[in-house]
Amino acid sequence: MKYLLEISFLGTEYAGYQVQKNAPTVQGALCACFDGIFGEGCRVTGCSRTDSGVHARSFFCTLEIPEGVQRIPAEALPYAANNALPSDISVITCKDVPDSFHARYDVKYKEYEYIIFNGKQRSPFFEGRALHYPHKLDAELMNKAAAVFCGTHDFKAFMAQGSDISDTVRTVYCCSAERDGELVRIRISADGFLYNMVRIIVGTLIYVSEGKIAADGIGEIIVSKDRMRAGFTAPPYGLYLNRVVY
Amino acid sequence: MKYLLEISFLGTEYAGYQVQKNAPTVQGALCACFDGIFGEGCRVTGCSRTDSGVHARSFFCTLEIPEGVQRIPAEALPYAANNALPSDISVITCKDVPDSFHARYDVKYKEYEYIIFNGKQRSPFFEGRALHYPHKLDAELMNKAAAVFCGTHDFKAFMAQGSDISDTVRTVYCCSAERDGELVRIRISADGFLYNMVRIIVGTLIYVSEGKIAADGIGEIIVSKDRMRAGFTAPPYGLYLNRVVY
Repeated sequence: MKYLLEISFLGTEYAGYQVQKNAPTVQGALCACFDGIFGEGCRVTGCSRTDSGVHARSFFCTLEIPEGVQRIPAEALPYAANNALPSDISVITCKDVPDSFHARYDVKYKEYEYIIFNGKQRSPFFEGRALHYPHKLDAELMNKAAAVFCGTHDFKAFMAQGSDISDTVRTVYCCSAERDGELVRIRISADGFLYNMVRIIVGTLIYVSEGKIAADGIGEIIVSKDRMRAGFTAPPYGLYLNRVVY
Repeated sequence: MKYLLEISFLGTEYAGYQVQKNAPTVQGALCACFDGIFGEGCRVTGCSRTDSGVHARSFFCTLEIPEGVQRIPAEALPYAANNALPSDISVITCKDVPDSFHARYDVKYKEYEYIIFNGKQRSPFFEGRALHYPHKLDAELMNKAAAVFCGTHDFKAFMAQGSDISDTVRTVYCCSAERDGELVRIRISADGFLYNMVRIIVGTLIYVSEGKIAADGIGEIIVSKDRMRAGFTAPPYGLYLNRVVY
C-alpha cells in the first residue's frame, strides 16, 4: 500500500517540484519531512514537475515508506506532516492506494489557472502570486481566442524550444479567460501539457488583447507548429496547478 | 496643497503603521521613499494606526513635501513612489487636497474585514494572511450574533484593557459574517474603532460558534462593559483595513 497525498504549496521559495542538487525543492522538503517521521528511505512520487516559482492548490504525490516501518493511519498523516513541513507546503488530505497506483501515469487530466492582476499599480497581495499587467486587458476577446485551443491538436507551437518530446499532440478540454474584478483568470485543463505550454498560451492571449495576434488567428498558429508565431512565455509566478483528476 | 494617497500594504514585516524607533513601520517606509523623491522633511499623516501584522487593502495618508520643492503631478506620484517602495507597500491612487484636509480627523467611517481560513489543514496561501481555524464554523450563527453589534453603543467590553480612552461610545454601521468557500469573512464598518475592537469582536463571534457565548447574549456583554465577558483577541494577521470614507 502507498499513501496518496494531496498537497498545496506556494512555489516562490522553491526551484520547482522535482529534487535537485543544491536547490530547495518541494519534493526535497517532502522527503526530508517523511524521512523524519518514518526514517530514511521514504519515496515520494509527484503527479507532475512544476517550474521554479509555480504554485499548486492541489498537487498529488504518493509516499512509500521503508519496509517494516509501522504505518500511521492515512487520516492522521496530514497532521503529522504539517507539524514538520515548512509553512509554504501543506498536506491537505491523505488516503491509502494500492501499490499499482502511479501518481504521474494514472493522471486523467489536470487543470491549471493563471492569474493576472490587472490593476494600474502593483498590489502587495499579489507579489509573486500573479502577473501584474497594468493596462486594461480585454478578457472577452481573450476568452474568444482561448476557445480555439480546445480539442485535440498538435501543440508544438506552444512548447518551449529545445524540448526533446516527440509526441506533441494533446487534448485540451477547457480553455477560458474570465475577468474577476481586477483579476483576469485563465483556466486550462488537458490530458497533458507540453513544457511551458500554459505559460505560452497565456502570453499568446495577452498578445491577442494587445492586438499583436488576431483572435481568429490562433488556429493558424497551432497548424504552423511554429513557436515563433505564438506569444511570449508568461512568468511562472502567476501559474497554479488547480486540480488533478485520476 | 497636500497629496492624498491611497495605499495598500501587507503588514507582515511591519511593526504597524506608525513610526517607531528600531522597528520597521509602514510610515517609516513611506517617509524614506518620499524623502528620496522630494528631499528630507516630507511629512506623512495616516488615517489610523494599525497594529503589527495588520494589512490594508485601502489605507489613506496625506503627504506634505518641504516648502519650495517642485511638485510632481498627483497622477504621476504612484509610479514614482512604487519604483522606490518595497514590494509589500504600493501607492494605488493619489490626488491633491487642500491644506485644511486631515487624513485622520476627516474620516467619516472605516471598514475592516477579518479573514478566517476554515480548512481542516493550514493553507500556504493564507499563511500570515488569515487566521487558520480548523473546526467548522457556524457562519450563519456568527452572522446572527454580529448583527447585535450594529448601532451606537458603549463598546468598552470590546476594548483592550489598559487603553486610556474615556469616550468608548462608537457607532457600528454594519457587522456581518459570511461563508465564502473555505473562508469566513467578517466585515465591520464604524465611525471609529477602540483599540483591538475588531479583533475582540471576531474572537467573540468565534466563541459564539463554539457555544461558549450565546448569540443572543451579545447585547448583555455590551451593556456589562466588562472585557472579561467578551471573547479572545483574534490575532492581527487576519485583519484588513478595507475601506476609508471621507
